[in-house]
Amino acid sequence: MKLYNSNFAPNPRRVRVFLAEKAVSIPRVEVDLARFEHKAPEYSAVNPFQVIPALELDDGAIIGESIAICRYIEELYPEPNLFGATPLERATVEMWQRRVEWHLLLPIAQVFRHSHPHMAKLEDPQVPDWAAANRPRALRNMMIFDDILRERPFLAGERFTVADITGLVALDFAKPARIPIPPDLTNLMRWHESLKARPSAAA
Amino acid sequence: MKLYNSNFAPNPRRVRVFLAEKAVSIPRVEVDLARFEHKAPEYSAVNPFQVIPALELDDGAIIGESIAICRYIEELYPEPNLFGATPLERATVEMWQRRVEWHLLLPIAQVFRHSHPHMAKLEDPQVPDWAAANRPRALRNMMIFDDILRERPFLAGERFTVADITGLVALDFAKPARIPIPPDLTNLMRWHESLKARPSAAA
Repeated sequence: MKLYNSNFAPNPRRVRVFLAEKAVSIPRVEVDLARFEHKAPEYSAVNPFQVIPALELDDGAIIGESIAICRYIEELYPEPNLFGATPLERATVEMWQRRVEWHLLLPIAQVFRHSHPHMAKLEDPQVPDWAAANRPRALRNMMIFDDILRERPFLAGERFTVADITGLVALDFAKPARIPIPPDLTNLMRWHESLKARPSAAA
Repeated sequence: MKLYNSNFAPNPRRVRVFLAEKAVSIPRVEVDLARFEHKAPEYSAVNPFQVIPALELDDGAIIGESIAICRYIEELYPEPNLFGATPLERATVEMWQRRVEWHLLLPIAQVFRHSHPHMAKLEDPQVPDWAAANRPRALRNMMIFDDILRERPFLAGERFTVADITGLVALDFAKPARIPIPPDLTNLMRWHESLKARPSAAA
């Protein structure tokens, strides 16, 4: 297997952190976004949607989409379990993974993509009004997650799951998006610190 | 169990079509979006993110997010299999479900939300430039899906899966979004017609 990766994008990091939690190592192929390698014919043949990451299996089959890659890794390496161990827990983990992806990572990423000067060429067109609409949305949702995390250490309950990995990547991405996390959100802050302290966060 | 539903939104329809394919019936609670019932305290207690659908279990536990609900139903009622039967097929189905959600349903929904007069109060603020940016994106991605569907009858391969349900809902939603599907996309058209012809499409 090999993993098409960039160290400068949030989605491949979700897979790298997941692999680190599983203690699984997969050779990487670096895709240089600044040189538009993800839009070149060679990578477009790997992934017609021109997004990273992608996992290439030994027979040439491609699995795209961070969470699809993580789920495949979970099936190959079931321990530690990161997607849930029972039908209800699996549904709950998927719910929280999607909620943090949709309501936290997405608005933060939209602010970054549509306001950061570095994205002027990659995001065509940048829509400043869309960045402005997503900034208060990101902050409002941070408050909702803060409230949810009042009751429990991790997003899906008492233990670390793939949902927390998306949360780590989302909150770390708030810095380049220039959205300071409000310091009065003490539950969100505590959660973020606990995720950053895990060895996998360096992946 | 009961399903919080609206007949005027695409995401609950994904679950209704899925249930119809499984021949499973779940009592529904209608949430009136036009009256902002999804933002009222009663529904906010069910789902703090104020989105539908949500599945309430008999013990009061809530599963939000269309795909998390569908996955839970798949575990309770495994046949017909709609999420994949092997690790590789499950990853492939998840990849295609996410791709059609992200690259087709999302841009079409963004055009609708940010340009349709009916959404002026529900989408606050409407960003006309964001609708304008998503219209060509939706059309470009329709072309990519058309090319993918040249080789096979369904999105994830030879058989119908949950990825096709998201595709049906996305393409049907192009009509209120006022994005005509280009008639020269014959593979996309053939796929859409085959999905609309299934009894589940009426759900």
